Amino acid sequence: MARILIINGPNLNLLGVREPDIYGRLSMEDYIEAIKADYPDVEIDYYQSNHEGDIIDRLHEEGFDSGLSGIILNAGAYTHTSLAIADAIKAIKVAVIEVHISNVHAREAIRHTSLISPVCRGVIAGFGLDSYRLAIEAFLY
Amino acid sequence: MARILIINGPNLNLLGVREPDIYGRLSMEDYIEAIKADYPDVEIDYYQSNHEGDIIDRLHEEGFDSGLSGIILNAGAYTHTSLAIADAIKAIKVAVIEVHISNVHAREAIRHTSLISPVCRGVIAGFGLDSYRLAIEAFLY
Amino acid sequence: MARILIINGPNLNLLGVREPDIYGRLSMEDYIEAIKADYPDVEIDYYQSNHEGDIIDRLHEEGFDSGLSGIILNAGAYTHTSLAIADAIKAIKVAVIEVHISNVHAREAIRHTSLISPVCRGVIAGFGLDSYRLAIEAFLY
Amino acid sequence: MARILIINGPNLNLLGVREPDIYGRLSMEDYIEAIKADYPDVEIDYYQSNHEGDIIDRLHEEGFDSGLSGIILNAGAYTHTSLAIADAIKAIKVAVIEVHISNVHAREAIRHTSLISPVCRGVIAGFGLDSYRLAIEAFLY
Amino acid sequence: MARILIINGPNLNLLGVREPDIYGRLSMEDYIEAIKADYPDVEIDYYQSNHEGDIIDRLHEEGFDSGLSGIILNAGAYTHTSLAIADAIKAIKVAVIEVHISNVHAREAIRHTSLISPVCRGVIAGFGLDSYRLAIEAFLY
Amino acid sequence: MARILIINGPNLNLLGVREPDIYGRLSMEDYIEAIKADYPDVEIDYYQSNHEGDIIDRLHEEGFDSGLSGIILNAGAYTHTSLAIADAIKAIKVAVIEVHISNVHAREAIRHTSLISPVCRGVIAGFGLDSYRLAIEAFLY
Amino acid sequence: MARILIINGPNLNLLGVREPDIYGRLSMEDYIEAIKADYPDVEIDYYQSNHEGDIIDRLHEEGFDSGLSGIILNAGAYTHTSLAIADAIKAIKVAVIEVHISNVHAREAIRHTSLISPVCRGVIAGFGLDSYRLAIEAFLY
Amino acid sequence: MARILIINGPNLNLLGVREPDIYGRLSMEDYIEAIKADYPDVEIDYYQSNHEGDIIDRLHEEGFDSGLSGIILNAGAYTHTSLAIADAIKAIKVAVIEVHISNVHAREAIRHTSLISPVCRGVIAGFGLDSYRLAIEAFLY
Amino acid sequence: MARILIINGPNLNLLGVREPDIYGRLSMEDYIEAIKADYPDVEIDYYQSNHEGDIIDRLHEEGFDSGLSGIILNAGAYTHTSLAIADAIKAIKVAVIEVHISNVHAREAIRHTSLISPVCRGVIAGFGLDSYRLAIEAFLY
Amino acid sequence: MARILIINGPNLNLLGVREPDIYGRLSMEDYIEAIKADYPDVEIDYYQSNHEGDIIDRLHEEGFDSGLSGIILNAGAYTHTSLAIADAIKAIKVAVIEVHISNVHAREAIRHTSLISPVCRGVIAGFGLDSYRLAIEAFLY
Amino acid sequence: MARILIINGPNLNLLGVREPDIYGRLSMEDYIEAIKADYPDVEIDYYQSNHEGDIIDRLHEEGFDSGLSGIILNAGAYTHTSLAIADAIKAIKVAVIEVHISNVHAREAIRHTSLISPVCRGVIAGFGLDSYRLAIEAFLY
Amino acid sequence: MARILIINGPNLNLLGVREPDIYGRLSMEDYIEAIKADYPDVEIDYYQSNHEGDIIDRLHEEGFDSGLSGIILNAGAYTHTSLAIADAIKAIKVAVIEVHISNVHAREAIRHTSLISPVCRGVIAGFGLDSYRLAIEAFLY
Repeated sequence: MARILIINGPNLNLLGVREPDIYGRLSMEDYIEAIKADYPDVEIDYYQSNHEGDIIDRLHEEGFDSGLSGIILNAGAYTHTSLAIADAIKAIKVAVIEVHISNVHAREAIRHTSLISPVCRGVIAGFGLDSYRLAIEAFLY
Repeated sequence: MARILIINGPNLNLLGVREPDIYGRLSMEDYIEAIKADYPDVEIDYYQSNHEGDIIDRLHEEGFDSGLSGIILNAGAYTHTSLAIADAIKAIKVAVIEVHISNVHAREAIRHTSLISPVCRGVIAGFGLDSYRLAIEAFLY
Repeated sequence: MARILIINGPNLNLLGVREPDIYGRLSMEDYIEAIKADYPDVEIDYYQSNHEGDIIDRLHEEGFDSGLSGIILNAGAYTHTSLAIADAIKAIKVAVIEVHISNVHAREAIRHTSLISPVCRGVIAGFGLDSYRLAIEAFLY
Repeated sequence: MARILIINGPNLNLLGVREPDIYGRLSMEDYIEAIKADYPDVEIDYYQSNHEGDIIDRLHEEGFDSGLSGIILNAGAYTHTSLAIADAIKAIKVAVIEVHISNVHAREAIRHTSLISPVCRGVIAGFGLDSYRLAIEAFLY
Repeated sequence: MARILIINGPNLNLLGVREPDIYGRLSMEDYIEAIKADYPDVEIDYYQSNHEGDIIDRLHEEGFDSGLSGIILNAGAYTHTSLAIADAIKAIKVAVIEVHISNVHAREAIRHTSLISPVCRGVIAGFGLDSYRLAIEAFLY
Repeated sequence: MARILIINGPNLNLLGVREPDIYGRLSMEDYIEAIKADYPDVEIDYYQSNHEGDIIDRLHEEGFDSGLSGIILNAGAYTHTSLAIADAIKAIKVAVIEVHISNVHAREAIRHTSLISPVCRGVIAGFGLDSYRLAIEAFLY
Repeated sequence: MARILIINGPNLNLLGVREPDIYGRLSMEDYIEAIKADYPDVEIDYYQSNHEGDIIDRLHEEGFDSGLSGIILNAGAYTHTSLAIADAIKAIKVAVIEVHISNVHAREAIRHTSLISPVCRGVIAGFGLDSYRLAIEAFLY
Repeated sequence: MARILIINGPNLNLLGVREPDIYGRLSMEDYIEAIKADYPDVEIDYYQSNHEGDIIDRLHEEGFDSGLSGIILNAGAYTHTSLAIADAIKAIKVAVIEVHISNVHAREAIRHTSLISPVCRGVIAGFGLDSYRLAIEAFLY
Repeated sequence: MARILIINGPNLNLLGVREPDIYGRLSMEDYIEAIKADYPDVEIDYYQSNHEGDIIDRLHEEGFDSGLSGIILNAGAYTHTSLAIADAIKAIKVAVIEVHISNVHAREAIRHTSLISPVCRGVIAGFGLDSYRLAIEAFLY
Repeated sequence: MARILIINGPNLNLLGVREPDIYGRLSMEDYIEAIKADYPDVEIDYYQSNHEGDIIDRLHEEGFDSGLSGIILNAGAYTHTSLAIADAIKAIKVAVIEVHISNVHAREAIRHTSLISPVCRGVIAGFGLDSYRLAIEAFLY
Repeated sequence: MARILIINGPNLNLLGVREPDIYGRLSMEDYIEAIKADYPDVEIDYYQSNHEGDIIDRLHEEGFDSGLSGIILNAGAYTHTSLAIADAIKAIKVAVIEVHISNVHAREAIRHTSLISPVCRGVIAGFGLDSYRLAIEAFLY
Repeated sequence: MARILIINGPNLNLLGVREPDIYGRLSMEDYIEAIKADYPDVEIDYYQSNHEGDIIDRLHEEGFDSGLSGIILNAGAYTHTSLAIADAIKAIKVAVIEVHISNVHAREAIRHTSLISPVCRGVIAGFGLDSYRLAIEAFLY
């Protein structure tokens, strides 16, 4: 049975709370439940932290002999500032796919440069929460 | 019945010819046939050109009242140099998803900047030919 | 009798089609007809292409012994990326005026640099379709 | 009866004096008289100053309820260094057209960036003194 | 009764310890006590952390329905490197004022750019510890 | 009795006139009167000019033996372009506080760099007209 | 018998026409005839286009099993803007030598950067039409 | 008896695990034991964290009256992104030596700039694990 | 009899007032008197203004048929920001020598670029008030 | 009888010594002998130095009335850092051709900029030692 | 018996002469004697030159079959400007360690970039003359 | 009796030889003789070299106890590339004045930055050979 870990970075715990008229009232937890129902044969774990160090720790713990099929990482703002997360991705054995809910390339300039893209298997950005499902699809293929 | 158009830009006609030991002997045409079999309910059209102007022309022809569900565009090197294709995408009504076979962010610096990303719905990069299937998935969702 | 050639670059064929509530329902062809009526003593030719190479070809054909009073060029996005069109303008004998419908300087940064301005006689930008009439005025003076 | 104000910035008082064999012996004052004759139905006022503050003062005085059809501004070197004049143009209600006698884009790099272009209605550059007439045309249209 | 939260970022716990002959022997805790005496009608809370993630967590906890009049944030060095804190400020509902003890603009270049200024209500810098009092004044007005 | 001088730079004379629905109908002169009432024990002088040289002249006149407690300077657009005003502030003995009505850091890039910040005692930006009162508070402390 | 293909890019069809007093009345076609006479044992083909896409198409057609000894490419202005031609050169098997008639390094800055140099076997620039002959020499060696 | 603290930053806990055929099977803990044997008269403490805030906390705890002879800091990726750690080093009294296992100057550009070098006593980079021993030597001298 | 005009720009009226223990109690006026005594055969005029426009006006008035041997200009901070003064110098016929009291190249970066140097006959910087005398020497030679 | 001087700059004395399995065992001296045999009617001189000043001295000695047909210069790393050699080439009368053994444009960024290209007659790069022969061909033409 | 060569670049011959109250009266020659006493089993040679070419010559002479254990190079200012020395280090077989007496990263910006670091085995900077001893330690390990 | 040393850098030995119709037939040696006659009470020494290292050596020899009143240095192209000469000037005790024959600021961009200006007493540029006399005047004052 395939197992996939979704890691969300800073401020992504606010989904469903922040501006619900725009982003909808669906929290990330609700979305995880919904997607689990869509993929009954896949074990989907979810982890969120606002701490750069926590994300690195978790990548280390799950990155070697965890039996994971892959890690889906939305590093939020750390995408653009954390060379340390990039180093962690490069060091571990489990493949990582970078996802973004919004099309980061259509936002301000600082979000056009990703420090982690070069060490990820691929990048999926701009499809709303569906970006996560596409990443699962990519791992299952 | 959903209809999706895949447009490939310069040099992508060489898939299957160029370095087959590395890229495989699968041509883009073969891949299109394979993916049509996977999605029998979707009409998938394919167009390739090495000419920037041809790509713009085709986007215009298919971008308004064509009944397309979406356009999947791998603009190749024009991704990084063609403001004119970006303007065409912005002008038409049909949504466009940008795809890349390789992880362009892990290659040389000139390929880190995409002129068309800001006007596409989303970006999928780095999954080999499977990037196209993921884009179809995104349109079908 | 004076003869003037108007050349429009990529995506300008969509005038009247794209967002008519904003840009109006007047196509470039309609506008050309209107302006011909205003200047009965001037022969006004019109050419549009989305192809960089076509624009260069046309500049060559008309740029030497064509008897033209001048060429009005709205190169669209190629204004900012085509050194080849700039070289063509520099090579021919007929003077070229650069025009833009919108005020390109009030748009995104990539549109603030024109590769063709240094080799044109002058630049007129920001007056809507009236930019073309002002260029005709400039040639007739 | 339409009224238009022409404002000239630093060093433009030297027209007709500076290198008359090149620029001609026509002073700006002479040119204004000539153009008044061409447009008998338009009241044309002229103001010149070498002082950035004076230009701002004048824009304020004439920019709100003056009944002006428009202001034609050749800000000279202040075009490239005066954010304060740009702010003044943005603050007033009367539209401003930016003009230049020479093709500033064909000169040294510092003259390629205009701080005032983004807040002007349009830009006309490179037609010699005829740039002013074209701006009048633009306002009368 | 108004309630205001002061958040201090990295290294600001050293006030009163570090070079007391220069910065004085007043710790931040002492200063908070003094300012509470000056504003008996305001509840003033204080939080300090050297951890970027902790600051984000606290902004989330206090940023929605906490009844706070405002948050005063001296993010220290994170001012210049943390896009994640900027995102947190943008996401929450309670207004944030950015303060600095020293005049950061008179220090080295990396401290001239603040990632959080664009999402704060205002900025107060250079008044020593009195910068905090001025921020309280701003919220009470 | 304390005496404070407020100096406003270019375009700030338009407060109350420019877009009153947004900025309110309160002119700077009205605001000065209101703030004088709030601080009866402080003599508050006000000076505005659109001329860079006038601001320098005034700083010289009041900067040495004028008995001023301080100068509050909103240099408007000159904040970002006038090294000469910065030199004047550095040369005089009376301390200067830089204020801005809007949060300049949330506006376009050219307004993110202040030439005068390094030579001012402190900076207060983004609190509307209340920025001036906060500066008075800073001087009175 | 060796076979060499010379490809000329945009505006190079004007040789002999443009400023004959400077560049001479020798057209590229005449030069090709002359050089064929110098190298009777070499089959020399010549192709010119102003279209970026045409040049890519031709490189593809001749780049794999054409029996060519080499391709001599003067890409004109596309040298500095076409990543797509660079990709084509990299993809094909036949070696390409980059030539320029003028010393591009002694011209304006945009011509100092060649996108195609890194994927060509070598570069020859600045020897007038003799640059082509030197490239033939290089292939024959 | 001299006491030295070695602090390792993000991902350095993976030494011995990550690519052992390249980096060897020696973990940092094993190396610390080996070096303790080499310096029996020196007390060597070791601390590792992936958290920027933890490293700052530890620098504060040990940086004032700890009796340390010095701190050896390999900040890993934080070397290039953490102004906060630089501020901590500047604030404390105990001297810090910056070390790197690899020659960071021979790696990608982002690793050529160290934010902490200016506030460290010295820098040692490129000698593998022996970099730590050289730093101990430097403190003992 | 030779006549030379010295023009001083912003803040240079403060010489002798500002920090007399450092700069001496000699005002510019006193220095002019002293130097007149040294050069009895030269008529030396002196003009100072803090207004960019005044300096341009004066350059115009004296720059054509004034019989001046030359103008010595210390433009102070305008050296680095005024393209308008540079244009004035270029327009007039009388030669201008740029002088600076301090060695501007040893000060902050913004003072390393002079907009007026390219249009002056020469530059003399760093000799204190003696810079003016050296400029007189240069004109008399 | 034609005479040509070949000047080699720093480190080029190591040819044949450095990595002979890659670069071959042919020293530059051997190559010179071989090429002399190919061109019996040309006198070929060779000079190598690792000293920037020596290269300048030699250019001076041979650059005026030496009867040389031309100088072939491989300035090695000085190509990219020596403005003084560029000045020397510009000053002398004998034409200089710049050659490189490798394709410098395919190497690291610092080698993409040549200070001497603008003052040489032409550039030949990337043909191994054959670059020298092509330069001789160019001079003999 | 190990042999190590120390090469010092420009201005380092002034040690002991320049500002002895600060740098001490110990010349480099004295220091070499002292360090020879510390390492009786190591033959330590010393060479200093102010000439870039001399340093390259010496690296060549000693870089191949000299039996050296290593070269310690303090290239002084050439560290930041000499690509030629970097090429020499890359070409030779003997390993080179880069040392600096001062912490170059704490000095002006031009000293933050080293052209030779990428080709050296490691870098040691900031430990005064002890930097040389640490480099010897590194070679002996 | 005052003694002054003039040091000229690369290519300045060509004065009088290079383009005599423009620069005159006066060699530097002739000029030195002439100026010695003008200043009979000053001993004027002259030294020229094309070698960066020679200039540094000479600065060292003459920079400490030579009894020189000053050194006049025209470093030619080394002005813009030699940090090593700048370090030498900074290290010695005798003051150095930087001179240039031409107005370097009116030439290409690379000549606008001087590495040695910050460590010289002053700069004199643009007065032809008279720049040297003005520097002598500056030392004698």
